[in-house]
Amino acid sequence: MTDPNPQNVADLSLEEKAALTSGADFWTTKAVDHAGIPSIMMTDGPHGLRKQAGASDHLGIADSVPATCFPPAVGLGSSWDVELAERVGEALGVESAIEDVAVILGPGINIKRSPLCGRNFEYVSEDPIVSGEIGAGLVRGIQSKGVGSSLKHFAANNQEWDRMRSSSDVDPRPLREIYLRGFQRVVQDAQPWTVMCSYNRINGVYASEDPWLLTDVLRGEWGYDGVVVSDWGAVNDRVKGLPAGLDLEMPSSGGRTDRQIVDAVRAGDLDESAVDIAAGRVVDLVRKAQQRPAIEGPLDVEAHHALAREAAGRAIVLLKNDGGVLPLAPSARIAVIGAFAETPRYQGAGSSNINPTRLDSALDGIREYADGDVAYAAGFTLDGSGDVDALRAEAVEAARSAEVAVVFLGLPAADESEGYDREHIDLPAAQLALLDEVVAANPDTVVVLSNGSVVALPFAEKVPAIVEGWLLGQAGGSATADVLYGAVNPSGKLTETIPVRLEDNSAYGTFPGEFGHVRYGEGVLVGYRWYDAKKLEVAYPFGHGLSYTTFSYGTATASVTESGDIRVGVPITNTGDRDGREVVQVYTSLPGSAVQRAPRELKAFASIAVAAGETVTAELTVRREDLAYWDVRVDEWIVESGAYTVEVAASSRDIRSTVTVDVAGDPLVLPLSMNSSVGEVMAHPVAGPIVQQALAGLLGDGAGIMASDEGMQKMMASFPIGRLAGFPGLPVTYEQVEELIGSAG
Amino acid sequence: MTDPNPQNVADLSLEEKAALTSGADFWTTKAVDHAGIPSIMMTDGPHGLRKQAGASDHLGIADSVPATCFPPAVGLGSSWDVELAERVGEALGVESAIEDVAVILGPGINIKRSPLCGRNFEYVSEDPIVSGEIGAGLVRGIQSKGVGSSLKHFAANNQEWDRMRSSSDVDPRPLREIYLRGFQRVVQDAQPWTVMCSYNRINGVYASEDPWLLTDVLRGEWGYDGVVVSDWGAVNDRVKGLPAGLDLEMPSSGGRTDRQIVDAVRAGDLDESAVDIAAGRVVDLVRKAQQRPAIEGPLDVEAHHALAREAAGRAIVLLKNDGGVLPLAPSARIAVIGAFAETPRYQGAGSSNINPTRLDSALDGIREYADGDVAYAAGFTLDGSGDVDALRAEAVEAARSAEVAVVFLGLPAADESEGYDREHIDLPAAQLALLDEVVAANPDTVVVLSNGSVVALPFAEKVPAIVEGWLLGQAGGSATADVLYGAVNPSGKLTETIPVRLEDNSAYGTFPGEFGHVRYGEGVLVGYRWYDAKKLEVAYPFGHGLSYTTFSYGTATASVTESGDIRVGVPITNTGDRDGREVVQVYTSLPGSAVQRAPRELKAFASIAVAAGETVTAELTVRREDLAYWDVRVDEWIVESGAYTVEVAASSRDIRSTVTVDVAGDPLVLPLSMNSSVGEVMAHPVAGPIVQQALAGLLGDGAGIMASDEGMQKMMASFPIGRLAGFPGLPVTYEQVEELIGSAG
Repeated sequence: MTDPNPQNVADLSLEEKAALTSGADFWTTKAVDHAGIPSIMMTDGPHGLRKQAGASDHLGIADSVPATCFPPAVGLGSSWDVELAERVGEALGVESAIEDVAVILGPGINIKRSPLCGRNFEYVSEDPIVSGEIGAGLVRGIQSKGVGSSLKHFAANNQEWDRMRSSSDVDPRPLREIYLRGFQRVVQDAQPWTVMCSYNRINGVYASEDPWLLTDVLRGEWGYDGVVVSDWGAVNDRVKGLPAGLDLEMPSSGGRTDRQIVDAVRAGDLDESAVDIAAGRVVDLVRKAQQRPAIEGPLDVEAHHALAREAAGRAIVLLKNDGGVLPLAPSARIAVIGAFAETPRYQGAGSSNINPTRLDSALDGIREYADGDVAYAAGFTLDGSGDVDALRAEAVEAARSAEVAVVFLGLPAADESEGYDREHIDLPAAQLALLDEVVAANPDTVVVLSNGSVVALPFAEKVPAIVEGWLLGQAGGSATADVLYGAVNPSGKLTETIPVRLEDNSAYGTFPGEFGHVRYGEGVLVGYRWYDAKKLEVAYPFGHGLSYTTFSYGTATASVTESGDIRVGVPITNTGDRDGREVVQVYTSLPGSAVQRAPRELKAFASIAVAAGETVTAELTVRREDLAYWDVRVDEWIVESGAYTVEVAASSRDIRSTVTVDVAGDPLVLPLSMNSSVGEVMAHPVAGPIVQQALAGLLGDGAGIMASDEGMQKMMASFPIGRLAGFPGLPVTYEQVEELIGSAG
Repeated sequence: MTDPNPQNVADLSLEEKAALTSGADFWTTKAVDHAGIPSIMMTDGPHGLRKQAGASDHLGIADSVPATCFPPAVGLGSSWDVELAERVGEALGVESAIEDVAVILGPGINIKRSPLCGRNFEYVSEDPIVSGEIGAGLVRGIQSKGVGSSLKHFAANNQEWDRMRSSSDVDPRPLREIYLRGFQRVVQDAQPWTVMCSYNRINGVYASEDPWLLTDVLRGEWGYDGVVVSDWGAVNDRVKGLPAGLDLEMPSSGGRTDRQIVDAVRAGDLDESAVDIAAGRVVDLVRKAQQRPAIEGPLDVEAHHALAREAAGRAIVLLKNDGGVLPLAPSARIAVIGAFAETPRYQGAGSSNINPTRLDSALDGIREYADGDVAYAAGFTLDGSGDVDALRAEAVEAARSAEVAVVFLGLPAADESEGYDREHIDLPAAQLALLDEVVAANPDTVVVLSNGSVVALPFAEKVPAIVEGWLLGQAGGSATADVLYGAVNPSGKLTETIPVRLEDNSAYGTFPGEFGHVRYGEGVLVGYRWYDAKKLEVAYPFGHGLSYTTFSYGTATASVTESGDIRVGVPITNTGDRDGREVVQVYTSLPGSAVQRAPRELKAFASIAVAAGETVTAELTVRREDLAYWDVRVDEWIVESGAYTVEVAASSRDIRSTVTVDVAGDPLVLPLSMNSSVGEVMAHPVAGPIVQQALAGLLGDGAGIMASDEGMQKMMASFPIGRLAGFPGLPVTYEQVEELIGSAG
C-alpha cells in the first residue's frame, strides 16, 4: 500500500481538497485549474462504453454514443478464457481512450448468490475463482490502454431489491471465502485504478462508510493503493465515509457534501489528513489518466465487431446435443422459430445498456450459412401482443415442414434489469406452450436460449439439443449461427448451476430478505457447493458444456511446488474429428477438514485448444492461498495440513481423474485456557500428554470411565476443562486444574 | 412481574445471601438455619425421577432410586394431548413429593432443529406451539402437587456438540418465533417455579449471563417471577451472571463463586441489590416448596405403571398400514423378530436416565395377546456380537413360517445421548439387511421402530406397515402390544417430519457449526416450515399418523372473537367401525404477508375422541398473539391485517378444510425519513398522496417515466428518497425534498 503523494494537494485549500472528493456532475471529477488538475470522465459499461451524449443517468435511460456491445459478463465468463477476457478488455480500453474516457465502470464480479438477482447478467459466476480470474483479465486488458477500470460492486451486493439500504448479513467465512475472494484476486493480480463501493450495507454498515472493508481489508490486507469511488448515489453519510476510505463520491452532490466535509474539519470532527488522503488519491488517479498514450479514432468498428463475434461464439454453452442433431448441415431444411431469432436480446437493462455500433440477428446469420431458403415464424411476439394462436399455428406448420426446427426462446427484456430482481426463473408460459407444440410436430428440435441468468428447463428431456446463448452482445446473432453450423465448435461452460427448480437454490427462503436485512444463511455453500453438499439433482451442473468433438482425460499428476502451490498436469486428447477447445477444471477438497467445506471447490481452470486427434497436456496451478479457509478464531487465512483430493474434471459433476497431494499447512497452535475443552487439552501437542497423565492420576475412577466408555469420551470431549474442574466431588480442585493448564498451555 | 420480598433476606449477611445463590452440593440448595431457610433438593428427570442414591452426577452415570419411567418427550409429545401430559406431570409430582424432591428438572422443550441433536428424545417437537402446549401441560401437572418444575434449556440449545461454548447465532425473527415462542407460552400459561438457563451462548452471549434473555425478555416481557437456575455447570462468569438474572448456580462451586460475588460487592463492582434479588428469589422458591401438601409413600407402582402404559399407547405413531395388516388377530401366526422386542430401548442416555420400577418387553406383551405360540428370533444382537449370519438365517426362517413377521428395529442406545450428537440418521446396516431378507421371505412384514429421533426409512415402500414406537418408557413393550393387537387404537401423530434424506433437513450444512459458532441460517424455516417452503418430498410429514379407523372432516368455520382470537370449529366423523382419537390440527398463513413466512404454521391442535360412527365438532382456538411475527424494525410482535388462510388438517400435508378469516392487525405506521424508499413514501397513508403530488410537479418528465415504465417503477420503488434527491440535474433540491418529507412524514 502506497500512501498518496502529499505534494499532490499541498497547494490546495481545504475547500478545493474537499471539492476533489466528489464529482463535478454526473460523470466527471472537478478540475482545480491553478494546480493544473483537470477534470476526468468516467462512464458506465462493463461490456461496452456507455458515454452519454445528452441527459445523464445511471440507469440506462438516456442515449449514449455508439460503442461495441461485447457479451455481458454472463457470456464472457462462460468462455472460461482469461486471455479472451483480456483482449475484450483491451478493446474496451481503446474505445474509452478514443472517447477520452479515463475510467470505465467495470468489471462487475459479484457472486450470483441467487438466480433471481436482476443484475446477474452483469456478473461472472457463482464461484469466486472464475469471477476473479475473468475480472482480472478484463482489468488488465482495459488498463493496458492507459484507461482505468472500476472493480465493482464492493461488496456483498448480490441482489437488487432494496439494494441501497439492505444489509447483507454474512458470516466471516462466506464473506471472505465466497464474496470477497474474487475481489481480492482482482485487486492483487490486476490493480484496478478504482474500486467501486456498493450501495448496500454489510453486517449493518454501509459499504460506503465501512472502514473495515474500505481500509483494513482492501488497503491494509490486500495492499490496494487506488481510488475508492462510490456507486452512483451510494453515499449515506459523506463525513463518515471519507475517513473510512471512500475517496470519491459520484455523482456530484451539488456541493452539499463538500460543505459537510469542510464544516466537519473546521468543527474538529474530521481530521484534515483524511481529506488530504482522499483528495491526493483522486489527484493520483487524474495524473495516471493524463499519462494515457494517444489512441486516435475513429473506432475500427469492423475489427471490434469481429472480436465481439469471437467472444460471443466462445460464450455459447451447448447444454445438450443428443444424436448429433447439431451442427446443422447447410443443406438441412430448417425452420427458425421464435421472435428472438429476428430481434435479438443481447444485453440487460440498467447502467450497462450499450448503444451498439451494429446488431446481428441470428436469423440473418443462419441465412448466411443455409444453402436454401430458411423458413421463419415468430411464434410469439416479444411484448405478448398479436394473435397468439395464429402465430403458434404458423410456427408449428413451419416446424412440421422442416427437417430441423430451431426455436429461439428467452426471457423478456423487462425480466432482467439493474434495480429489481426476478420473482421466478420460468420462461414465459406462451413460449413453453409453443415449444411443446413444435416438438410434437417435429421431434428434431433445437432450443436456443437468450437469458441473462438461469431459467428452468422443463423441456430438457423433450428436445435433443439445447444451446444456452445467454446475452451475447451485438454479434450474438451471427455467433449463434457460427455455432449452429459448426463454423465455431462450442466450448463455453456453465459458470452457474442450472437447478431443476428455484426452490433447490441455496438462497431460496432468505432471498431477498426483509426490512433492511438479508441473511446469507447458507454460509459458504453457494452455487454448486450447495447442490453438491445437499446431493441435489441439477438440470445442468456448474462447469458443464459440450463440444462437437469429444475429449478424453489422461491420468492427472499433482505436486507441490517450492512456493507451496499445487502444480497439476493432465493430458487431454481430442478423440473426435474436429478441432475444439476444452475447459479443464481443477477442484480440491480435504477429507477430515476441521471446517465445513463443500464436497469440492474450484481452484483452477484453463481453456485448452486441442486439434482433432491430438493430445495436449494442460498445466494448471492451484495457488496455495486458495486452499486456505478463513479461521474465525484468529481472523486469518489458514491452510490446513493434510492429504488434499485434487479432482481434474470436465464439469463439477464429471470428474475425470483424481489424485491426492500432501500439503504442509500453516502452523496454528491455540493457547489453552480453562475454557479449552477436554478434547482440545488432550489434543494439544505440548500440553496434551502432560495434562492427560496428570488428570489420569487426579481423576482416578473418572479417568477409567472415560477411557472405557466411548459415549462418555464423546460427552467429555467438548466439556470445557474449567467447568469440569468446578464440579463438586472431584478429587481435584479448580485451582489445581488452573495451575496445570496455566503451566502446560 | 413480582419483585421478591425483601424481608426474605433482610436478616442475612452478604456472605449468607451469596451462599444462597449457589448449591450446597450436587442436588441441594444451602440452608441458613438461623433464618429458618432449609435446604431443598432438585433432581433430574423430565419423564421420571432420577434421585440419585449414591454418587452424584448430571450425566446418568451413577444409580438412582427406582421411579416410573414415563415416555420421554419424543413419545409423550406424539400424543398431542395436553391433558395426558398434565396427568403424567401430576404423577411426576407425586413421585417427587414422596421422595421429598422440591423441584424436578424438566420439561425440556427445545426445538428439534436437526434430527442429529443427540438429545432430541428429551424434546417435544420441531414446532413451538406443540412444544409449548405439551410443556405447559407437564408443568401444570407437576406443580399441582406442590412440586416445582424447571423449564429447560433456556434457550436456543439445539445441539449437544460443543454445547458449553458454542454460540447459537440466530436472527431475531427465528429466535422469537421459533426458539423462544414455546418458552414464552409455558412461562405465561403455567408459571414454572424455575427456568433452567442453557449451557450455550446466544449470539455470542452465554445464556447464563445474558441480561437480555434472563431479565429483559423472561421477566420484563413475559412477566416471569420465579427462579432462574443454571444448567449443571453452565456458569461461565458468576459475577456477570448474577445481575443478568441467574439466581441460582448449580451444582455447588465449593464456595469459589460465592466468594467471587462477595468480593465483587465489596470492591464495588457488583451492586448488593443484585445479590438480594437473587437470594430473595431462592428463598421464595424454598418457601413455596415448604408449602407442599403432604403426599405419603409408598409409590403406587402399579397405578403409575398403568399410566405409563396408557401414555405409551398414545405416543405410538402408525406411519403406514396398507391392506389392514394391522391390527393383528390373536389367532394370527406371527414371528417376532429383532432383539428390541426382548430387550426394549425405552429411554435415552444422560441426565434423564431413569431407574425404572418395572420394564415390559414387547415380546411378553405380544405373548399375552396371541392365541398360540409366538416364534421369536433376535435376528441381531444389540452390541453387534454373535454369529450374524446364523441369527439372520434363523429370523428369515421364522418369518417364512409365519403369517405375519413383526420386526423390531431401532437405534443402538449409544447413538442417542445427552452430550453428543448423531452423525447420520441411518439404522444399523445389519438391521436393514435383515429386514430386506425378512421381507423377501414374507411380504406381510410389520416394522416396529425404537428410536429417540427420526431415522431414515429406506424400506418405507417395501413393507405394508410401520409402527413408529419412539422411546416409550418402561411400559412401552406392553403398550406396543396393545397397539399391534388393536386393544389401543393408535392416535399418535408426528411432532417432527421424517425426511427422505438427512440432506433435505434445513440445518444440514450448518449443523453443528464450528469454532464456537453455529449459524441458524434457515431462519424461521425449521422443520415442516422448511420442507413445505422448499417443496421437498418427505417420508412422512409433520402431523401425520394413522388410526385403525378413519375420520372425515366436515366444513370448517372460523370467526374472530372479541378478544381477537380465531375460533375454529370443524365436525369430525369417525367413519370406521372402531372408536378412536383424531389429532386435529389448525394451520394458518397470510397470503401477501410483508415478511417471509412458511406456507403454513401450526397454531392450534386437539386430540379428539370420536366413537365409531359418531361425529364430534372439534373446537379450537388460534390465539391472536400466535398470528404475530416479530418485527425487527420496532422490536415488537406485530399482527398483520389481512385475510388469513385457516387450514384444518389431519397432517401438515393433509389439509381437510380451508377457510379464510379477516383479521384487523396491529397499528404500525413508521415515520418517514430521507432514508425511506420512494415506495414507502408513496405508500404512507398520510404523506403518500401529498408527496406523490408534490413530486410529480417537481420531477416533471421523471414522474412521467416512472408512471409509464413498470421497470422504472420497480427500480425506483426501493430508492431511498434522500439519495434520489441528492442526484444532480433534478428540478428539485435536496433541501426541498427534505422539507417535504419532514412536513409530511
